[in-house]
Amino acid sequence: MPYGYVNAMKTKPGHRDEVAAILTGGADGLRAAGCHLYVVGLDASDEVTIWVSEVWESKEHHDASLQLPETRAAIGRAMPMLTGEFDAHETTIAGGLGV
Amino acid sequence: MPYGYVNAMKTKPGHRDEVAAILTGGADGLRAAGCHLYVVGLDASDEVTIWVSEVWESKEHHDASLQLPETRAAIGRAMPMLTGEFDAHETTIAGGLGV
Repeated sequence: MPYGYVNAMKTKPGHRDEVAAILTGGADGLRAAGCHLYVVGLDASDEVTIWVSEVWESKEHHDASLQLPETRAAIGRAMPMLTGEFDAHETTIAGGLGV
Repeated sequence: MPYGYVNAMKTKPGHRDEVAAILTGGADGLRAAGCHLYVVGLDASDEVTIWVSEVWESKEHHDASLQLPETRAAIGRAMPMLTGEFDAHETTIAGGLGV
């Protein structure tokens, strides 16, 4: 079964769009690394929360992707704009539409 | 921008797979109703939580889908197996892979 990851992160005020652009900018590299879906959503109830919903070939693919140079560079650019508050949940994908 | 909906729900013990089967069984109808993605994930940290990550053409498409006979029937079948605890978040989709 594919591996899922749902993660809410909070950005410092005024930086959400910039972080979202970093997150959405890596789509091609994600696909090559075994990512099926990587959905970046801006929470409608505030100006600072980003929800990322990911589907990967396996947990191993996800974990390995974090070591890729482009991923590490993106994390390095985004991290100073994040508060450090994360709300992350690992899942096993049961199915649905588009998966 | 497409409309996103991330929703965690809790099932009564022993009923998560059954609820997941109901949720994943409606994929064809969802597509026809303007749904782009509907990802059903089983939380890896417990036996009762289901995460649903949805992407819709618009909030109006999502809201209208809740009135469809097949949606109402699915909700009716699932509801007795849920505890009533939901953690739902509306988003504006910024992009990513697969959206």
